[in-house]
Amino acid sequence: MGKGAQTKQAILNHALGLATRVGIEGLTIGRLADDLRMSKSGLIAHFQTKEALQVQVLQTGAHRFVEDVLRPALKAPRGEPRLRALFEGFLAWEASPSLPGGCPLIAASTELDDRPGPARDYLVQTRRDLLDLLSTTVRSAIDEGQFRRELDPDQFAYDFWGAMLGYHHASRLMRDPRARARASAAFESLIRAARATAPAPGGRRLVAGGQ
Amino acid sequence: MGKGAQTKQAILNHALGLATRVGIEGLTIGRLADDLRMSKSGLIAHFQTKEALQVQVLQTGAHRFVEDVLRPALKAPRGEPRLRALFEGFLAWEASPSLPGGCPLIAASTELDDRPGPARDYLVQTRRDLLDLLSTTVRSAIDEGQFRRELDPDQFAYDFWGAMLGYHHASRLMRDPRARARASAAFESLIRAARATAPAPGGRRLVAGGQ
Repeated sequence: MGKGAQTKQAILNHALGLATRVGIEGLTIGRLADDLRMSKSGLIAHFQTKEALQVQVLQTGAHRFVEDVLRPALKAPRGEPRLRALFEGFLAWEASPSLPGGCPLIAASTELDDRPGPARDYLVQTRRDLLDLLSTTVRSAIDEGQFRRELDPDQFAYDFWGAMLGYHHASRLMRDPRARARASAAFESLIRAARATAPAPGGRRLVAGGQ
Repeated sequence: MGKGAQTKQAILNHALGLATRVGIEGLTIGRLADDLRMSKSGLIAHFQTKEALQVQVLQTGAHRFVEDVLRPALKAPRGEPRLRALFEGFLAWEASPSLPGGCPLIAASTELDDRPGPARDYLVQTRRDLLDLLSTTVRSAIDEGQFRRELDPDQFAYDFWGAMLGYHHASRLMRDPRARARASAAFESLIRAARATAPAPGGRRLVAGGQ
């Protein structure tokens, strides 16, 4: 990486941390220049527009999510152990000191949901990739015989992600000291309900997902 | 209500809809003045500061949530039917035409989670009240014998709210046509796992919440 690219990457890393606090829409070139004590013209040379800056900050966040959460989890055995690694990795990511406001992609999800444009498009694609990865991991768990055949992998992904959004809400907004325990309990309930080993023929219906 | 109070309420209703699209932080007095084609000085006479405007917009949203979702649900029978009415009411609220960006309190939750101040304080209080209402409703369901004695009402409230946050995410950001079906499946799974009628002694552990 050349010096210019290194400088740009350092700016993006800083911008990502700032975005977790002020929001992706709050991340203007002027605000970033103030925060870095750089000239606006210097930043404009790197990013041209606020929109380009936003997209590149989201890309920086998504790449770090891949490196910090997804890649390590993919080293865990297929199926349930990998889902558990994704869950633990996500909680650690939320608490990362370099992300003072927690997951920047969750924060951007409610900020950008009504704002068409390249930043929203990029964010939707990363979320879709994440949900697809979760569904695929659930499918592996079914193939391995860990989870029930009738389980709906996409429903599991929805429920998993709901528990993660609940954790973000409980830990960040509510500052709930039990947020981690709540997230763990939610995750373990999902895993239990997904497992192949129902206790009795009648019991299976009680824990079956879907309608 | 006097004419001045009526005008102010009309402004707040408009500001609430605007906030669902531009965010509570995007809701400046200047932006609202542009949107309403009013003078900034006229709005300053009503609200003085951006912070006061934000708090009153959140109050407007919370009061409407009480009128549109909570009060009708409280007419349903205690326990499970009331939880179901809260769930259905919440989905209808999210799709309300007067809230083009969905629930303004969910959007504000990620926007304000790192911004100390009266708006955040007010929001946290309304969320706490909502979670308390959910827990109390679950406790009623236990008292009525509808739900298991060992069920943790606060965990149920966390899981319920996670499913609602998942719905907001799936319907608004992802524009997922199955968002409603996913939310319903998540809700029905929670209800099934909470019910008192376990099929067999061994089955109970499988569906028990918590660790």
